[in-house]
Amino acid sequence: MDSIERLTEFFRQFPGIGPRQARRFVYFLLTRDREYVKGLMESVEKVRQSVSICTSCFRFFTKEKASIHAGVFSSSSICQICSDTSRDTSLRMIVAKDADLEAVEKSHSYHGLYFVLGGNIPILEKNPEQKVRLRELNKLMESVGNRASEDKNNEPKKLKEIILSFSTNSEGEHTTLTIKQILEPFAEANGFKVSILGRGLSTGAELEYSDGNTISEALKNRS
Amino acid sequence: MDSIERLTEFFRQFPGIGPRQARRFVYFLLTRDREYVKGLMESVEKVRQSVSICTSCFRFFTKEKASIHAGVFSSSSICQICSDTSRDTSLRMIVAKDADLEAVEKSHSYHGLYFVLGGNIPILEKNPEQKVRLRELNKLMESVGNRASEDKNNEPKKLKEIILSFSTNSEGEHTTLTIKQILEPFAEANGFKVSILGRGLSTGAELEYSDGNTISEALKNRS
Amino acid sequence: MDSIERLTEFFRQFPGIGPRQARRFVYFLLTRDREYVKGLMESVEKVRQSVSICTSCFRFFTKEKASIHAGVFSSSSICQICSDTSRDTSLRMIVAKDADLEAVEKSHSYHGLYFVLGGNIPILEKNPEQKVRLRELNKLMESVGNRASEDKNNEPKKLKEIILSFSTNSEGEHTTLTIKQILEPFAEANGFKVSILGRGLSTGAELEYSDGNTISEALKNRS
Amino acid sequence: MDSIERLTEFFRQFPGIGPRQARRFVYFLLTRDREYVKGLMESVEKVRQSVSICTSCFRFFTKEKASIHAGVFSSSSICQICSDTSRDTSLRMIVAKDADLEAVEKSHSYHGLYFVLGGNIPILEKNPEQKVRLRELNKLMESVGNRASEDKNNEPKKLKEIILSFSTNSEGEHTTLTIKQILEPFAEANGFKVSILGRGLSTGAELEYSDGNTISEALKNRS
Repeated sequence: MDSIERLTEFFRQFPGIGPRQARRFVYFLLTRDREYVKGLMESVEKVRQSVSICTSCFRFFTKEKASIHAGVFSSSSICQICSDTSRDTSLRMIVAKDADLEAVEKSHSYHGLYFVLGGNIPILEKNPEQKVRLRELNKLMESVGNRASEDKNNEPKKLKEIILSFSTNSEGEHTTLTIKQILEPFAEANGFKVSILGRGLSTGAELEYSDGNTISEALKNRS
Repeated sequence: MDSIERLTEFFRQFPGIGPRQARRFVYFLLTRDREYVKGLMESVEKVRQSVSICTSCFRFFTKEKASIHAGVFSSSSICQICSDTSRDTSLRMIVAKDADLEAVEKSHSYHGLYFVLGGNIPILEKNPEQKVRLRELNKLMESVGNRASEDKNNEPKKLKEIILSFSTNSEGEHTTLTIKQILEPFAEANGFKVSILGRGLSTGAELEYSDGNTISEALKNRS
Repeated sequence: MDSIERLTEFFRQFPGIGPRQARRFVYFLLTRDREYVKGLMESVEKVRQSVSICTSCFRFFTKEKASIHAGVFSSSSICQICSDTSRDTSLRMIVAKDADLEAVEKSHSYHGLYFVLGGNIPILEKNPEQKVRLRELNKLMESVGNRASEDKNNEPKKLKEIILSFSTNSEGEHTTLTIKQILEPFAEANGFKVSILGRGLSTGAELEYSDGNTISEALKNRS
Repeated sequence: MDSIERLTEFFRQFPGIGPRQARRFVYFLLTRDREYVKGLMESVEKVRQSVSICTSCFRFFTKEKASIHAGVFSSSSICQICSDTSRDTSLRMIVAKDADLEAVEKSHSYHGLYFVLGGNIPILEKNPEQKVRLRELNKLMESVGNRASEDKNNEPKKLKEIILSFSTNSEGEHTTLTIKQILEPFAEANGFKVSILGRGLSTGAELEYSDGNTISEALKNRS
């Protein structure tokens, strides 16, 4: 396998990229000037160096910004959102992945904290804790209990609600149910609520073409 | 224009049919045997004769069935749903068109009565009452008031709620707002509620690809 | 099954129409005024009455026009194309169906006569002559031989070429091969050519995305 | 702009990649292990180092392979195809870009040499020679004339034909016409042919849905 094919193979592993487009990426890089490729490489390096995972919500974030943000460099293990004192620390939203978190941020409708699970829980998965951050979630729940976290990274003085925000496809629903079960005992013990995103008609939906399940959920959630 | 072109023109007016498919319909009819075409024609005739508009909910329904259903032929101006004594007459859902009503029926999640408005209210429409059944809606509201309807076609003894079930595209939203304004005085006067279908994530939705508006509605309606 | 469902079933048999759109057709007809439906019905009747199959090329055509065209009513069993003395009767193109014939006419690139086979020959079909007009094709070939046709419907004094114009999908290719075999003896006996539409790049094709077969055909047919 | 956004911007410039997928690429890289990213970076470096442009046909090729192929390292400025003595050097196909060349190679229907123009000639382009390899093409044509090339990289002893293989969209057609004009004097002077890929029905095409232009080309190229 020559270097063109080798690089094509690398690009084929990119999300949603087939062999043909992977090959086009290679030619694209070959026709770019040295500067572009140098910039791309440095940018990849920079991301790997500067981006770390927030020890509080487990989202990816860029250190430098966080340090500027949080002022002190020591706190650079906490992301901008978690270290943003203006956010409502009594709310915690659990999402599957960073892209979901960003979609929620773009909606400007949520101002609490997050917890990135690291994916959906595969149905029939024997060891889900090896696929997603169940241990970290348990730790967070315990910290909620014994308030140990309080003085550390601004953990909620009092957690009021955990919002489960997963996709409504089968894997997402399975994840919602599983996480709900895991959280219930903590919720009772610490008196916080576990809620789920509302189901119903999405923006632009046509009633005629909506599935029965969506219609019945929309009916239940009518207001 | 010869007869093939003339018939093509007729089929072009069918919903969602372009010139090419319209022409294919003509050839399709030409290659069918006499019986099929005869059956089709009779079937169209039959629909026009047997189908009438329910004087209570204004949906299309087939008389014969209604008469069988309601037992007495006199009541054949009332559709099967409106004459079904097992339905909850304290609920009335307003939909734009029959296809929407059927989508709701298919969901098996609603057992009240309906009111078919006859379409969405076009934005900037000067005389909406000429496009949709606003006069009929007003009559219904008055009848709710003066109970006149009571002994006639089983109109709700007491109307508890009117559910506005319109699409969530711009025309549908406009229709929802307009109808809500029309209904409010009656709602106050007669003590019934006006509700709207819940907004949120539809079945199978992926959070990452949901628009901000849908996410913020889903957050509002979280439970 | 009530009359709405019955008519829906009829529409479902229309080419490319699913249950949902079939139902929409029914509601569409119900919301049309009497005149439209009357016009539609008459138009269907008219097509059935006025359209007949040309005894020479077997395409559908509207009689009245032909009679006007051909002047004498007796010749109304021959379509406008076959009775058009300006067309080159030494060329005969065999197509699967009327829609293909029309696509060729729209291209304004062919001025010979046609023969509508009535469909492609299904692969593995035991009795193709029951599916398509193989007997009629044989008759035409014989008439070419014994010139019997000459004085009747203006059959070519001398047939120079038969062009096989079938789709290039598997069924179309199978049809091309089968018809070619059938025609060869006649071609040799009567000294006419049997040709096939050129293969190659279609208009707007991008070389990068063209399949290998198309490219190799385009190379063979380079000029 | 932080490092995640910066890398996103780089990926957005990749062919056919929008902002959302670009961002997903970044997260993809963040979730890969160190080895994958290291491998990717090295692979990009390797491609940039090892891939050069063939001085004969101007396609991209990987040096090492060529040297193995051609045996002598000195010849590493000539690609595998140009240095493949089994190819028919009397044929030269001009394509717009490497991806087109590969599509032709995949078809296994051509065994001559190539010339990669470097793109289509934009319509209304004032200085096409700044966009594509017109100077190089002219050089090649001159070399064909004065046989200078003969002993160097195995240039055809006698060039018999140049095949113009461009897409059949408007830019491709424009390029074909322009290149044809440029080549004609050389063709006359040196007695080689300039041909164009055959136009007609592509594999799987349905006659009914083929545009008039394709049908008329298919008719012209019938055989």
